[in-house]
Amino acid sequence: MIILGVDPGLTCTGWGLVAKAGSRLSHVANGQIRTDAKLSMAERLVQLDAELTDMILRHRPDSGAVEEVFVNVNPQSTLKLGQARGVAMLSLARSGMPVAEYSTKVIKKALVGTGGAEKHQIQAMLKVLLPGVALAGEDAADALAVAITHANMLGSHR
Amino acid sequence: MIILGVDPGLTCTGWGLVAKAGSRLSHVANGQIRTDAKLSMAERLVQLDAELTDMILRHRPDSGAVEEVFVNVNPQSTLKLGQARGVAMLSLARSGMPVAEYSTKVIKKALVGTGGAEKHQIQAMLKVLLPGVALAGEDAADALAVAITHANMLGSHR
Repeated sequence: MIILGVDPGLTCTGWGLVAKAGSRLSHVANGQIRTDAKLSMAERLVQLDAELTDMILRHRPDSGAVEEVFVNVNPQSTLKLGQARGVAMLSLARSGMPVAEYSTKVIKKALVGTGGAEKHQIQAMLKVLLPGVALAGEDAADALAVAITHANMLGSHR
Repeated sequence: MIILGVDPGLTCTGWGLVAKAGSRLSHVANGQIRTDAKLSMAERLVQLDAELTDMILRHRPDSGAVEEVFVNVNPQSTLKLGQARGVAMLSLARSGMPVAEYSTKVIKKALVGTGGAEKHQIQAMLKVLLPGVALAGEDAADALAVAITHANMLGSHR
């Protein structure tokens, strides 16, 4: 079973794929999608959708999850983040996979055991859980953390 | 030339189409898309995208515009609105049309002459500009106002 995690953002969207066989997890791939800030909003959203859909077609994940984005104090930033997040959720769902949502707190708790974990603790735990993983960046790391959280939740539902 | 205006929202998205021949405008169609609140966020976004795309395929607009949404004081509402707006912009852009954005103030000024116009003034003006138009609802009326604003702007660029 291949599980996709996504950490959405207009400037940079992280994605990460893990394989689950019984209770064993392994790393499949991770990456980051940057949209061109010189393009219009609509063109950037098309770029994000096209690259996410391309990645999904290459890896054919069975299930996906998207991080619940940080709600910024700046409404314009929140709106932009919402636009990217809406497109990310659509790209996954349109590909036919169920799409779960997890808050940052739940993800941190699932990986490190505490909802207040720091970024470097998450990344250290990723290297333990997915030995040899090379992280494409911070957003890709966050996306892998989403994928692992979802993999654990799927397991506990069975 | 067929011009599409969209007033996006997760619960209800309005759309309106006008035809422009020289400086003459006429009504083509208008409607509202409601998403099922019992579905997951991802499923609602798929529903919105599917219905918008279906309408676009039926009417084949040449150009589109989306209203710049009201940025709510509640960040969660702003995020949801952003998600619906991102999907709407993507649906239009993926269909190959250029997508413009206009603020509510610009739209009101274009239709009634003042950025502080009331909803009933907008709807009264729609009935003058598009004689015989039957409005599907408030969001569809707002969407037609977006389409007319865009039609006027396109005209003034020529």
